[in-house]
Amino acid sequence: MGFRCEIRLSGAGGQGLLLAGKIIAEAAAIYDGKLATQAQSYGPEARGGASKSEVVISDEDIDYPVATHLDLLLAMTQESVDAYVGDVRNGGIVLVDSGLVDSVPQGSYRVVSLPISQTAIDEVGKGVTANLVAVGIITGLLDVVKAAAIESAIRARVPRGTEDSNLKAFRSGLAMAKSLSTESTGE
Amino acid sequence: MGFRCEIRLSGAGGQGLLLAGKIIAEAAAIYDGKLATQAQSYGPEARGGASKSEVVISDEDIDYPVATHLDLLLAMTQESVDAYVGDVRNGGIVLVDSGLVDSVPQGSYRVVSLPISQTAIDEVGKGVTANLVAVGIITGLLDVVKAAAIESAIRARVPRGTEDSNLKAFRSGLAMAKSLSTESTGE
Repeated sequence: MGFRCEIRLSGAGGQGLLLAGKIIAEAAAIYDGKLATQAQSYGPEARGGASKSEVVISDEDIDYPVATHLDLLLAMTQESVDAYVGDVRNGGIVLVDSGLVDSVPQGSYRVVSLPISQTAIDEVGKGVTANLVAVGIITGLLDVVKAAAIESAIRARVPRGTEDSNLKAFRSGLAMAKSLSTESTGE
Repeated sequence: MGFRCEIRLSGAGGQGLLLAGKIIAEAAAIYDGKLATQAQSYGPEARGGASKSEVVISDEDIDYPVATHLDLLLAMTQESVDAYVGDVRNGGIVLVDSGLVDSVPQGSYRVVSLPISQTAIDEVGKGVTANLVAVGIITGLLDVVKAAAIESAIRARVPRGTEDSNLKAFRSGLAMAKSLSTESTGE
C-alpha cells in the first residue's frame, strides 16, 4: 500500500498560497523522489478574494488529485477555516495564523495556532514571506517532504533576489514546528 | 446540461505553460463569470524537464478537475504531442508549435500547426512570450473565454513591466487564429 498525503492551503488572494503549494509539490516530486499534484479551483469565491491551493503527495501514481480527507489544512483567514475545517480527516492537523483567525471549530483534529504572519514580520522583516513561514511549519509538522528538498524548490521558484528572505522565512517556520514537537515530548 | 471544456498545455519546463494555464483559468472564472480549475502533476517526467498544465472550464461546479477527453491539446515539444495526443477527443484540436514539433500522429482531430515560438520572436521580439502567443491562438480557436477577460488576467498575472509585451504576444496569437478561421471560410 502506498501512502497519500493531502494538504489544502487556504486564505485570501495575495497571500502567496498558490506559490506555496507549487513549492511543496515540486519539492516532493522533483527533489524528493515522490509524486505530487497541485490544483486550484477558481469560481465565485475567487472573485471574492479567496484563494485555495491543494497538494496531494504519494509514492505512487495519483489518479484522483482532489483532496477530500485532509491530512493538513492551512487556514490564513477566518473564512477559510470555517469553510474547510470539515474536510480535515480524523487525527489531521488544522494550522491557523493566530493573528488572523479568532476561533477554530472543535473537532477530532489537532489545532495548531501560530503567529505565522507576525513571525514573517519579526524574523524576516517582510510580511509577504508569511507563506514560506507556513511552508516551514507544514514541513516540520508533516515530515513527508525533506526540508532540503523544500529549500531546493524555494531556490528554483521564488523571484530572483528574494531567495534569502524566503529561505529565512521557511527556516523560521521549520524551527517553530520543531519547538512544538519538543514541547509535546516534554509534557 | 452544462458545458465543459478541457485544455491541456504541454511541453518543456521554462516554456511558461503553468502561467499560461493560470491565466486561462483566472480569465474564465474571475473575469468571465465561469468556473474553472487548473491542475498540474509533478513526477518523474517533471524531473526530465517536461511540463503539463490542465485547465477545465465549465458553467457549473467542476467535481472532477482532471482532463480526460481534451477539447484542445497544446504541444510545445515532440515528446508532449507523442505522449498526449491519444487523450484528445474526437473532433478536438491538436495545436503544435511548427518550429518545435516535426510530426503529429494521425487521428480524428483537427491539427493546427503554427510557428508559435517564431511569432514571439518576430512579432514581440521576445521568445519567452511564446506561451502568450499560444494563449491567444487557443482563445481564438476555442471561443470559450472572452478575449477581454484574458487580457484582464494577463495584466493581473504577468510580472510587472512585461504587460505590454505579453499583451502583444496574446494579440498576435489571437490574430493568427482568426486568420485561420477566415481561410477556412474562404475555401
